[in-house]
Amino acid sequence: MSLTPWRGFLTRALYRNRSLPHARYLQLATIRNDGKPANRTVVFRGFLEESDRLQFVTDARSEKAQQIAHQPWGEICWYFPKTREQFRISGNLILVREKHPENSLLKARLMAWQQLSDAARQQFAWPHPGAPRAEAEAFSPPLPSPSEPLSNFCLLLLEPQQVDFLELRGEPQNRYIYRLEGAHRTWVVQTVNP
Amino acid sequence: MSLTPWRGFLTRALYRNRSLPHARYLQLATIRNDGKPANRTVVFRGFLEESDRLQFVTDARSEKAQQIAHQPWGEICWYFPKTREQFRISGNLILVREKHPENSLLKARLMAWQQLSDAARQQFAWPHPGAPRAEAEAFSPPLPSPSEPLSNFCLLLLEPQQVDFLELRGEPQNRYIYRLEGAHRTWVVQTVNP
Repeated sequence: MSLTPWRGFLTRALYRNRSLPHARYLQLATIRNDGKPANRTVVFRGFLEESDRLQFVTDARSEKAQQIAHQPWGEICWYFPKTREQFRISGNLILVREKHPENSLLKARLMAWQQLSDAARQQFAWPHPGAPRAEAEAFSPPLPSPSEPLSNFCLLLLEPQQVDFLELRGEPQNRYIYRLEGAHRTWVVQTVNP
Repeated sequence: MSLTPWRGFLTRALYRNRSLPHARYLQLATIRNDGKPANRTVVFRGFLEESDRLQFVTDARSEKAQQIAHQPWGEICWYFPKTREQFRISGNLILVREKHPENSLLKARLMAWQQLSDAARQQFAWPHPGAPRAEAEAFSPPLPSPSEPLSNFCLLLLEPQQVDFLELRGEPQNRYIYRLEGAHRTWVVQTVNP
């Protein structure tokens, strides 16, 4: 059982918003090479086993992957429409590519691939994202193997260092900031004004 | 009538998603003073008259206002759940404070204040956002005047320089990148791979 204090609130939000498929969509901000921010929607793929690391998938050819190689820090903003809660989570971004040195993360990458739908897997065989639009047939490649990830498939992990949790439904709204602090990196919470 | 080519798609998305109040919520990424990204939900308050500038409101005491003073560039990510469209819009951020030098923007700030609900205006009289939680009574200040903005009330404008528009419903998905280019700053569109 996790001792991370904010995990229970996030689990509850996911549960209470489970009727909305887009409650698993959130926005990830990263830094472009010129120092400006980038921001896009990503899909939450669950927590990495026995950790607080959030899982996403991405394409090694995407701008996002390049930005993370340059500045491995991000902040997600996750708004739950039904319960009117917002989680802003910032921390280290870990891109798990084909040749990642940690075996346990390579295994997690393989599992993430296997758990995708055929349609989601096929997108990794599409032409280079962001390049001038290719012909229609380039988007109907053979289905990739469900057991062997394509080389450009990446697992992306966010390792939280701070969580800013806002409940808009409060009167007034409630806001809590969780930070990893001290030599033992324990979670400390502060109740703040919204 | 606007000649901006992406405006029609955004107007259509707002219309088709009008039954969802949170379709007017979007995520704004800015840069913290340490160069890391920040990301939070903001509410779209319409376009500034006769312009493509998106309007938001914020508190001069917020971290966001401080970040923008330091790096006046941002990127919003706006996902429309019903139609499955995403707009990523980056550009200059203009913070219109109480003493802004441009009269027309001060007038827009006044209008934005007047168009808020009483509850939304009252939040600008709440204790300092992000400070340790104040006593409950501090959140029930007298209602501010609906005609005279509080000094910490800011209008925030985003002046788009690039728009990355993704239609997830396409088969394959459709993605268009609009950029302001050339001496006359005209919008140029490129169709790219999703």
